[in-house]
Amino acid sequence: MAEYTKVALDAMGGDNAPDCNVAGAIRAVKDNDRLMVYLVGREAEIRASLERCAATEGTDYDKERIIITDAPDVIENAEPPVMAIRKKKDSSIVRAMNMVKDGMCDAYVSAGSTGATLVGGQVIVGRLKGVERAPLAPLIPTKNGIALIVDCGANVDARPSMLVQFAKMGSIYMKNIIGIANPRVAIVNIGAEEEKGNALVKEAFPMLKACPEINFTGSIEARDVVEGGADVVVCDAFVGNVLLKTLEGTGNVLMTKLKEALMSSVRSKIGALLIKPALKATLKKFDASEYGGAPMLGLNGLVVKTHGSSTPKEIRNTLIQCVQFKEQNISEKIKAVIE
Amino acid sequence: MAEYTKVALDAMGGDNAPDCNVAGAIRAVKDNDRLMVYLVGREAEIRASLERCAATEGTDYDKERIIITDAPDVIENAEPPVMAIRKKKDSSIVRAMNMVKDGMCDAYVSAGSTGATLVGGQVIVGRLKGVERAPLAPLIPTKNGIALIVDCGANVDARPSMLVQFAKMGSIYMKNIIGIANPRVAIVNIGAEEEKGNALVKEAFPMLKACPEINFTGSIEARDVVEGGADVVVCDAFVGNVLLKTLEGTGNVLMTKLKEALMSSVRSKIGALLIKPALKATLKKFDASEYGGAPMLGLNGLVVKTHGSSTPKEIRNTLIQCVQFKEQNISEKIKAVIE
Repeated sequence: MAEYTKVALDAMGGDNAPDCNVAGAIRAVKDNDRLMVYLVGREAEIRASLERCAATEGTDYDKERIIITDAPDVIENAEPPVMAIRKKKDSSIVRAMNMVKDGMCDAYVSAGSTGATLVGGQVIVGRLKGVERAPLAPLIPTKNGIALIVDCGANVDARPSMLVQFAKMGSIYMKNIIGIANPRVAIVNIGAEEEKGNALVKEAFPMLKACPEINFTGSIEARDVVEGGADVVVCDAFVGNVLLKTLEGTGNVLMTKLKEALMSSVRSKIGALLIKPALKATLKKFDASEYGGAPMLGLNGLVVKTHGSSTPKEIRNTLIQCVQFKEQNISEKIKAVIE
Repeated sequence: MAEYTKVALDAMGGDNAPDCNVAGAIRAVKDNDRLMVYLVGREAEIRASLERCAATEGTDYDKERIIITDAPDVIENAEPPVMAIRKKKDSSIVRAMNMVKDGMCDAYVSAGSTGATLVGGQVIVGRLKGVERAPLAPLIPTKNGIALIVDCGANVDARPSMLVQFAKMGSIYMKNIIGIANPRVAIVNIGAEEEKGNALVKEAFPMLKACPEINFTGSIEARDVVEGGADVVVCDAFVGNVLLKTLEGTGNVLMTKLKEALMSSVRSKIGALLIKPALKATLKKFDASEYGGAPMLGLNGLVVKTHGSSTPKEIRNTLIQCVQFKEQNISEKIKAVIE
C-alpha cells in the first residue's frame, strides 16, 4: 500500500467556499493517487457541496480519499487572529491545524484568514527546533519565471540571523519543490553596492555572504526582483509585503486600464478580439498560481495559505504541492541545515 | 520687470545628455516667460548641443534666458556620491548646487546621478532650519491619478518624527503644486488596522493622527497606494524605494509581455494596429512624468531629480514645475509648519 500525504483542507476558507475547495479536492485526488484530503468544516454544507461539485467535476474519483471532518465554527477574515485562534476551538482553521499538530495530517491548506493561518501555524503547529521564525513565502511571477519572497508574513522587525534562516529554507524549497538546481539568493536593497542599505541589510549581508549552504548573489533592487534577478529573495516581512502588494496592485491597475482601452471604441473592440488568444497565453505565463499557495517554512508540518480568490484549479495545485513537500522530506532537510 | 525663477540645470546629466536637457530648456523658456535657465556643464559641448537643438526646436526663443555656465567635470552614475561631491568641485552637479546655495539660482535640476544629487542637496544646499531630513518625493501614477511617495531617498532607518515632517511637507507640495485641496495622508503598512505594523509605524501612527496640519486617513496597504487610496504616502525611504521600483519593474515587465503578445502572430499584429490609438491614450494616463521630476523637500532651495531617461518634454515640465515651486513660496510654507 502506498503511503498517503494527508492534507487537512479548510473547506470554509476563501471567497467561494466551500465549493472552490471541494471541487479542488476532487480534482486533486483524481490527478494524484498518493493524496488524501480531509475537508474540515460544517459537515452538512460540505456534503451538499460535494454533491454539487460531483455533478460538474464527475463522480469518478476515489471517495475513500476525501473525508469530511466536522467543524461547526468559522473564523472570518475580519476577526483579530490571535483572539479567534484562542476562542474558536471548533472552527475549521483551528481544527485543521490541530490535525497537523497531532500528526493525523501532514499538511494544512486554507484560502481563508491569512492572520489566523499565520498565528495558528506558530502557536498550534509550532516551529521546528532551532527555527527563530516561520516565514510566509509566496511565489511571485517574474519576467521569465518565478521567485520566492521570504518573508511576506506577520514577522516584522526581523533580526539578521532570521534572514539567514529564511535564505536557507527558501533555497531548500526552490530546489526540491520547484526544481531549480542552485537557486540564486539575494537580499532586497535600495542599491546593488554592499555598503548600501538599512541597518538590517547591512548586518545581514556579510552573514549571508559567509553562509556555505546557499548561493548568495548579493543585493537586489525591487525592480530587478520583478525582472527575475534572483530565485530566493530575502527580506523583512514588511518589505516583502510591500513588494508583493505593489506587484499585485500594479498588475491589477494595468490590466484594468488595458481592458478599458480595448473597450473604448468599435475599432479597439475588433482589435481586442484579434489579440485575445495571444494576450491570454502571455498573461498566463505571468502568473505564479499554478505552483500552488504560499507555504510557511520551518514548521512541524506544512502550512499553506492560498489566495482568498482561489479557483478549484489553484486549490488542486496547492494540494498536489503538499504531496511533493512531504515526499521530498522538506521538513527533514530544513531541520538538517538549521540545527 | 517680472521676477524670474532661475534654474541651474545639470546639462551633463541623464542618458541623452546634453541634448535632452538643452532641448527641454528651449521648450521651457518658450512656454514660460518667467523662467531663466543656466545650462551647467562643458561649455563647448553645450554650445554645440544648442545649435543642434535649435535646428529641431526652432530658434524663436529668448536667448537671454538660456545662459551657459562652464563646468568642465562630470560625475558619473557609478561614482560613490559622497566622494564625488567632495572631490569634483568643477563638476556640473557641484557647480549647479553651489549656484543654489549662493542664492544665484532658486532651483537645481538633474537627470544625472541620484546619489550625488541627494548628497549634494543635504551637504551643499542644506536643510531648512528644523527639518530633520530632506526626503526625495517622486509622484507615482495611480489608477485614476497620482500620489506623492515621501520618502524614496537615501534616508533609511527613519525616526517617527521624520515621518511626521514628511507628511507635512508632502501635504504642502500636493496642495500648492498639484492643486489637491485637502490631500489625504496615509502611512504605508501591512494591514489597515491601527495595531498592525513594524516598530516605526506603530510609533508614527499616533503622532500622525494627532497632527493638526494634515488630513491623516490612517494606514494604507501597498496595493491600495497603486489603486489611488491616498495623495501623500509616507514611509521610510527603504520601503518607498521598494514600492517605487516594484511599480516601475512590474509596469515594464507587463508592457514587454504585452508587446510580445501583440507581435506573436499575424492575427495579433493586425489587432495591435487596431488597438494602438486607444492603448496609447490609456497608458499616457498611467504616467506621472508630465508633472516633472521628484523634488527633495525641506531644503534651502529647490532640488529636483528627474529620470535618467528623461525626454526633452520631461525636462521642460520639471523646469516649469520649478517656477511654480518658487511662485507658490513652498519653502516659506514648509518653514512655517516645521518651525
